[in-house]
Amino acid sequence: MATPDKLTEDHWIRRWLARWDMPRNLTVSAGDDCAVLPAPAADHDLVLKTDAIVQDVHFTVSAPPQRIGQKAVNRVLSDFAAMGATPLTLMVSVGLPKKLNPAFVEKCYAGMSRAAARFNVTLAGGETTRSRELWFTVSGIGKIRKGTALLRSTAAAGDFIFVTGALGGAPRTSRHLNFTPRLAEGQWLAAHHLASAMMDLSDGLGKDLPRLAAASRLGFTISAAALPVTRGRTRHAAVNDGEDFELLFTVRPEKLSALTLTWPFKTKFTPIGVMVSGKKNDTDGLTFSGFDHLRTRSTSPLAG
Amino acid sequence: MATPDKLTEDHWIRRWLARWDMPRNLTVSAGDDCAVLPAPAADHDLVLKTDAIVQDVHFTVSAPPQRIGQKAVNRVLSDFAAMGATPLTLMVSVGLPKKLNPAFVEKCYAGMSRAAARFNVTLAGGETTRSRELWFTVSGIGKIRKGTALLRSTAAAGDFIFVTGALGGAPRTSRHLNFTPRLAEGQWLAAHHLASAMMDLSDGLGKDLPRLAAASRLGFTISAAALPVTRGRTRHAAVNDGEDFELLFTVRPEKLSALTLTWPFKTKFTPIGVMVSGKKNDTDGLTFSGFDHLRTRSTSPLAG
Repeated sequence: MATPDKLTEDHWIRRWLARWDMPRNLTVSAGDDCAVLPAPAADHDLVLKTDAIVQDVHFTVSAPPQRIGQKAVNRVLSDFAAMGATPLTLMVSVGLPKKLNPAFVEKCYAGMSRAAARFNVTLAGGETTRSRELWFTVSGIGKIRKGTALLRSTAAAGDFIFVTGALGGAPRTSRHLNFTPRLAEGQWLAAHHLASAMMDLSDGLGKDLPRLAAASRLGFTISAAALPVTRGRTRHAAVNDGEDFELLFTVRPEKLSALTLTWPFKTKFTPIGVMVSGKKNDTDGLTFSGFDHLRTRSTSPLAG
Repeated sequence: MATPDKLTEDHWIRRWLARWDMPRNLTVSAGDDCAVLPAPAADHDLVLKTDAIVQDVHFTVSAPPQRIGQKAVNRVLSDFAAMGATPLTLMVSVGLPKKLNPAFVEKCYAGMSRAAARFNVTLAGGETTRSRELWFTVSGIGKIRKGTALLRSTAAAGDFIFVTGALGGAPRTSRHLNFTPRLAEGQWLAAHHLASAMMDLSDGLGKDLPRLAAASRLGFTISAAALPVTRGRTRHAAVNDGEDFELLFTVRPEKLSALTLTWPFKTKFTPIGVMVSGKKNDTDGLTFSGFDHLRTRSTSPLAG
């Protein structure tokens, strides 16, 4: 079998492009110096996000390659969900090690294209380069109606804290590779003005909730018993494992009944606490450590 | 001195952000899940480009770190120049090896911020991850007035072929790190409808001119004697070294005098040949090899 080293860059670009539908929303697509797409309507803002996943940090090559590609795309889509935004198109850079099996890389591509197509997202461009380890950088461009983006910094004291889904256990199972970005839920919360602040849980509640609180210049109180814990996992894991890619959002007390009565999704949503004034956090006895993937590579195989 | 391994991700994000001016054109900037910026006016399209530079492929760590950061940004800005577009903001992902000196990385950041600021480009977001080698992925978002983007595919038979600047020698000197993206020239050509097709020379005329010709379904004839060659270099080097980051553009015969009479820049521009119908290329005896950085890592220290 040919190794990437025997193949040319143009070959890889062709193989890559073959994986993607013709990008309907682009005026000019991959193959020119830049991609061109119509700007969204005047009542919308642009939303931008870049993210990278690296071999042996965010995945291992023992994982199914489709799942690796899927994760690279879905991590970015999860950030769009966290704003309530609509992703439109992606740009992808790929670092290819010399000895990597081309079939493996093509399956990564297939996983990326499938994950993007699921949400009607196109590919605006790509870059391929030689590297020592496999990595993917995905940059997303999307839109949101002006004034509806949900930030981390806009929670108020007294707001209830919610999370979608169940937390914990993702890094030790396939869930860190195979999760569903909560785009529909995030867009719905933003469009209906039902959340006061929002982010996605990539590093774990134990690290991400303190970030949301700090951005809003508030503290928080959570109830350990209220946490939605993945079956078979501990509350400690629910708080600190990370890679949940669920939504963390806050809700004004007067919006609680509207949220509860109109939530149209099968996805579970659970109140876990309340934002409080001052910067003291009450974790109900749980250790909030989160993790930092710049510190933990040597000890943890996977990190957010 | 502290190594990155002793520092946290949040530390690196803070240090990174300290390098950049407050992004005036953003509604929401780094620190939230995504960045938000107003969409350009309705008579504009969005322009998108992503690019990556990797240690020992595009630079070596013996290079001045400011220059490495400068190159990471300027490669992308050169692609905006190639469309005649205006870059607005950048997203940057950085792969940091464990043993890298933090002062080195900070100087890379300084080089990036300086290069961007020179063209009033802001930073919309960044991502930092552990990796085995140093790499930077830069994604740019910009704008262009609808209908003015200069593509590779729109040259016509009989159009004259021009290049800016002088070609050759960049990989063996500091020029591959320290070049000026031809943004002003590209934007001027697009705004005044004086070019019929355009791209930037990243892989060398010997690879890039055949790409432009193929995209336009044409051939080309060049004059070896007409090539603007960097002092002390050969014509073979001018065609095949790559990393020139000059503009390659075509001009309809009836626009030649307008171009020549109104070109307002000190940058030299040189006619080197003509586009021809059919797909035969006449290189006037010069070997057009270009290069492919997926094939040449082991033999060449630097590649486009």
